[in-house]
Parts: sequence; C-alpha cells; structure tokens
Amino acid sequence: MIEVIAFDADDTLWHNERHYTEAKEKFKVILARYHDATWIDERLDTTELQNLNRYGYGIKSFALSMIETAIQLTEGRISGNEIHEVIAIAGDMLTKPMEIFDGVRETISLLSEAYKILLITKGDLFEQEAKIARSSIGDFFAAIEIVSEKNPQSYAAIVNRYQINPSSFLMIGNSLKSDVLPVLAIGGKAVHIPFETTWVHELVAESDLAGKEFGRLAHISELPDWIKATNK
Amino acid sequence: MIEVIAFDADDTLWHNERHYTEAKEKFKVILARYHDATWIDERLDTTELQNLNRYGYGIKSFALSMIETAIQLTEGRISGNEIHEVIAIAGDMLTKPMEIFDGVRETISLLSEAYKILLITKGDLFEQEAKIARSSIGDFFAAIEIVSEKNPQSYAAIVNRYQINPSSFLMIGNSLKSDVLPVLAIGGKAVHIPFETTWVHELVAESDLAGKEFGRLAHISELPDWIKATNK
Repeated sequence: MIEVIAFDADDTLWHNERHYTEAKEKFKVILARYHDATWIDERLDTTELQNLNRYGYGIKSFALSMIETAIQLTEGRISGNEIHEVIAIAGDMLTKPMEIFDGVRETISLLSEAYKILLITKGDLFEQEAKIARSSIGDFFAAIEIVSEKNPQSYAAIVNRYQINPSSFLMIGNSLKSDVLPVLAIGGKAVHIPFETTWVHELVAESDLAGKEFGRLAHISELPDWIKATNK
Repeated sequence: MIEVIAFDADDTLWHNERHYTEAKEKFKVILARYHDATWIDERLDTTELQNLNRYGYGIKSFALSMIETAIQLTEGRISGNEIHEVIAIAGDMLTKPMEIFDGVRETISLLSEAYKILLITKGDLFEQEAKIARSSIGDFFAAIEIVSEKNPQSYAAIVNRYQINPSSFLMIGNSLKSDVLPVLAIGGKAVHIPFETTWVHELVAESDLAGKEFGRLAHISELPDWIKATNK
C-alpha cells in the first residue's frame, strides 16, 4: 500500500531543462564569430559533464562551465565584456519566473488530502530553495529534501529519517536514472513521467531497465487513478 | 540539561576563511597591473556581499564574484587567459586538503559517547558534503544538516525534525550571527568559540549581544568541562 508520495521537481513539476536550452542558444550567439554552433554545443556538454564532479549541479556550475568553454574555444582571446554577457545569461536563469506544469497544483493538492507528500530534488541547495519558494506550491509538502545526488543511499537515508517503510513509498519523476532506478533498488515504487527532453547525463541504457517494474504515465493528472488502482 | 550538541563546521572544526584569504591574495596578483590591492579588496568584498542574495554561499559563488570584479575593475579589458587563472584559484580551493583544528577529533569523539552529536553547517550543499567526506570525522555525527542560511527558522526546523527540546540543545560555533544569536532566539544554548578572523558578513553589533547569555571558550578542548559544569 502506498502511503507516502514523493515528487521530483525540475521537469516533473516545472520547467527547468528549457532554461538551459535557451541559455545555450544565447551562449552560441556570443561565440558565433569564433566557432560553429555544433562544435560549441559539443564542447560545452563535455565541460559540463567534466565539471559535475568538481562543482555539482546547478546554474552557478553551468555558468562556470560556459565561461571555461568560452575561454577554451577562443584560446583565451574572448574579452572580459563577452564573459560579462555569459554571466548575464546565468543571472537571467536565476530569476526566471516559475513555469509550473498544467495539472500539477490540482493533482498535488488532491493527493495531499490522503497521502503524506514529499518533495525530493537534487541540485544546488540555494537555487532549489529559491525555486520552491517562488513556486507557491511548497506548502503542500510535508517535507522537502534537497540532495546532491539521487542514489539508493540518499533515498535510503530519507525513508529512514521519516521512518517510511520502502514498500509504502512512491517516487514520481521524469528521470529513470534519478527518480526510478534508485528507488526500486531500495524496495520502493516509482512512476516515470517522461519530459520532452532528457539531459544526456540522465540517460540510462535499456538493459538497466530489464525486469524492472514501475509505472509509466504521460501526465501527472493520471497519477491519482494510477495510485488508486495500485492500492486496490 | 544539555542532551544534543551541534557543531558548526567551517572555522569551528576546520580551516575555511584562510582559503578565501589566500585566494584573494592570488586574485590581487592577477589584477596587480590594473589596480592597487586595497581597491581590489574593497571591490571584491562589495561584489561578494551583493551576490550573496543571488548566488548563496560557497566557492562557486566566490569564483563568479572574482570574475565579475575582474571584469569591472578592468572595464572589460581583462583577457580570457587571466580569467582562466581566476577560475584555477577556485579549482584549487575546491580540492584543498582538510585542515582540522587541534583537539577537534578527540573532543567530538569523547562527547559522542555521552551525547547525540549533530553537524549544522551553512553553505553550498555539494561543497560542504565534499568537505565532510574528506574530513574523516563525519561518522561521529548522528545527523548532518546543511542549510542555506542559519536563522531561527532553520534551527527551529532542525530541532523539530529530530524532536529535540530546545532547552536541551547546545550549538557550538565561531559565528555570533549564525551559531549563537539564532539558537538563543529559539530557546537553545550556545557556546561561541571565536576564530582568528571573522568574515565581515558575519559581524554583529555589540548591542545585539546585550543581555544574551552564552558560553565563550577559547578552544574546543575546553568544551567537555564547560558542559559538565552547565549540566550540574
């Protein structure tokens, strides 16, 4: 029986990846006189992935990756003024208005009447707290957990902290890697609601999914019926 | 009666401010041909404080502040290669070996036999977790809480989460602003162990301390005796 429902935030409850995509477009315009767009994309992706272990997730980390990529790609010829434009891209991202997905507020409000609802998101503590504060749906959550990485250890720590039996724990999210597989690994349940784009870092191999049982929904508004059917 | 003891980390258990001071020295060398050291210091401090609300605490935030200051102070004339050197300063900070203060391990090990010990630190989640992991004293703590800001609300959330009676809660730290005043505000106890330098952002007015009761120790090794005397 499902008793506790936890939601991922970025690209599950509100737009996030879109802001990175838009930022990359602006970044490519700044560097257009040095390199073509495909090469810039490729180099930025590589720098971002390399920097994850060094900086963690989030916009500040992304800003530093853009700056490093710009310096590399221009062999140091990029000007201070152009780097200033790059920093401004990150500044815009930090203050973007929240774009909450359709049906999110209604679904979470409905579920919060019958279940304990948590928010579990990974990323930069400061940036995630700011987004939750601006989202106006923070009050539906009995607890909010911001973790640096979503893996079986971090989920185990959370169910332990709130004395949740893993078999009564359901995680909802758009990432198979972060929201589904580690939750199944600790004996929990998961529902995958894919988002239009998946960041390359979050992709998993088909083979990792073999034999795994979890829900797959197209939209968050289908969730209450799915839970009812599962709990029957 | 004190039952739970929580420690701040940076400049209470290990060196932190020192790394920022060293980084600033290197930063001033890079900008030496543009400006004198005092003016650079002043501008960087201003940018850092302005950016706290935008970026939060931590090394990535500091790196972006150094880059912004460098661009400002050179009116955009700073080169990509020089900015690369600035980023390298931050990269060094992120991998600095931990320098744990004398007596910390012994004191915490001793206290952990009789009390529940917590670590409560503010700052960047990713960076603080990395430091705790590298510190080799993480296992003494029953729980670790990384918060974006230390204020009465965040302390109240923590004592609530662990069902701690505030009057049995003791916080130890080097910052009057972050470790002492907000804990007294929620009815807890505090011990101030000053560090040689206090970041300007952490300073409090003398008037804020009027009538406040808390312990003042010169060294962490004096803590077990202080607690014994208080609990008598």
